[in-house]
Amino acid sequence: MNKHDIIREIRSKKSYLCTGLDTEMGKLPKHLTKNENGFLNFNKQIIKATSPYSVAYKINTAFYEQYGAQGWNWMEETLSYIPENTFTIADAKRGDIGNTSKMYARAFFENLNFDAITVSPYMGEDSIRPFLEFPNKTIICLALTSNEGHKDFQTKHIDGEKALYESVIETVCKWGNENQLMFVVGATRAEKVKEIRNLIPNHFLLVPGVGAQGGSLTDITHAAANGEVGLLVNSSRGIIYASDGENFDVAAGESALQLSKEMSGFVEQYLV
Amino acid sequence: MNKHDIIREIRSKKSYLCTGLDTEMGKLPKHLTKNENGFLNFNKQIIKATSPYSVAYKINTAFYEQYGAQGWNWMEETLSYIPENTFTIADAKRGDIGNTSKMYARAFFENLNFDAITVSPYMGEDSIRPFLEFPNKTIICLALTSNEGHKDFQTKHIDGEKALYESVIETVCKWGNENQLMFVVGATRAEKVKEIRNLIPNHFLLVPGVGAQGGSLTDITHAAANGEVGLLVNSSRGIIYASDGENFDVAAGESALQLSKEMSGFVEQYLV
Repeated sequence: MNKHDIIREIRSKKSYLCTGLDTEMGKLPKHLTKNENGFLNFNKQIIKATSPYSVAYKINTAFYEQYGAQGWNWMEETLSYIPENTFTIADAKRGDIGNTSKMYARAFFENLNFDAITVSPYMGEDSIRPFLEFPNKTIICLALTSNEGHKDFQTKHIDGEKALYESVIETVCKWGNENQLMFVVGATRAEKVKEIRNLIPNHFLLVPGVGAQGGSLTDITHAAANGEVGLLVNSSRGIIYASDGENFDVAAGESALQLSKEMSGFVEQYLV
Repeated sequence: MNKHDIIREIRSKKSYLCTGLDTEMGKLPKHLTKNENGFLNFNKQIIKATSPYSVAYKINTAFYEQYGAQGWNWMEETLSYIPENTFTIADAKRGDIGNTSKMYARAFFENLNFDAITVSPYMGEDSIRPFLEFPNKTIICLALTSNEGHKDFQTKHIDGEKALYESVIETVCKWGNENQLMFVVGATRAEKVKEIRNLIPNHFLLVPGVGAQGGSLTDITHAAANGEVGLLVNSSRGIIYASDGENFDVAAGESALQLSKEMSGFVEQYLV
């Protein structure tokens, strides 16, 4: 899938919701067994209940890696539950020297067939270029993240001019175009997001931090929506753990519906 | 293992060599089958031949992840070939918001039982702290890397004062002590490494980039060795692919021996 396909889905579902599958064995509803079967059934039912309202799913790879090789199998199996025409993101935050980034690209774009991967910019151009060489895939680069630690380096001023995250955005944009690149911008940073949108009017932003982390959907949307909407707003815990009862999937669906209802007004307002 | 154990091994082996297991199916010697069996036999024989001269092994996770779940099994199996009292590093360059970094720490410190992991500092304090909470484990933070892309952000000046990599070192050092933290400093940056050593006289540095990437063992050692040696110098391709013939393990052992011979003089010179 590419940007054009994402916009088509946003138009069709009137939603720009990305549901984050941060599944943890310890948080499964009580009636599900705490094993592979329970884990996969949980993901399957969550996806079934939320897919009418989700244009994207984000798999946080750490949650799967903690279970070792079987966790990688669960990631692969989970991808098979996600309907076609839904954008799939490996939230992996990878990045290494060129020959190594190429292996990561193979892992997530070929072996697992994700549509997109999140990458960390610290190691610069040759750590990101190998991902860009895969056709019809999207690279989502960390810019201004939703956590407290964003203050430690991302907002420091670089060469006396601009914040590191701004330098990251400007520099990375030289290596690929708006059909290949998105940026991660935390919903908890709405005041800065407007400036980011001015810097990159046409790139999609992946926005985590709505819900459990305290960001506001309304604020972030008015700060950054463009004529293509240009946003994928992620919610993980707020949706998938909406209930730990037997009706967890219904509750997750309702939580996703709630968010997508709010979004539908904004889609009508902004999408050209 | 901790810093004390590493110094004991350096003293005993008169070497500070870290052998990098960047194993690729396509580069296996011709006589080995290009499957799990060949891959694992290669690693087993390489480790057997190089372990007399290696105080550490570094597994570059990308090379294993590209094979999916089976690759994770191969990583686990490979760890079982590494002799006790040898320091094991997951070169994974992870880092995410706190609850996610905790999962990565579990994946590599508990599920796989590595002694150390490389992390990326871009997301700041709460992305690194969860790793530091695991006792007797080492966190190796990216500082100044060996690749060309280091120029894009790492050497830019931050808040008008110091380079980003210097700010990373100073800041990260506030979160843990020299027994918990090491830093990645590329061998191709010897001119800067002396300054880094002045900044952190007592931390170990993990130094990739000797060999295939062009760094000099002599230069980096004179620039940065301290009374504990304070260095783990990594070589991957130069050792494990020293020959693609049937004697590949002998050639790898000779290549490791060659490096460790050079190192032994420096160990005598520097180790107090």
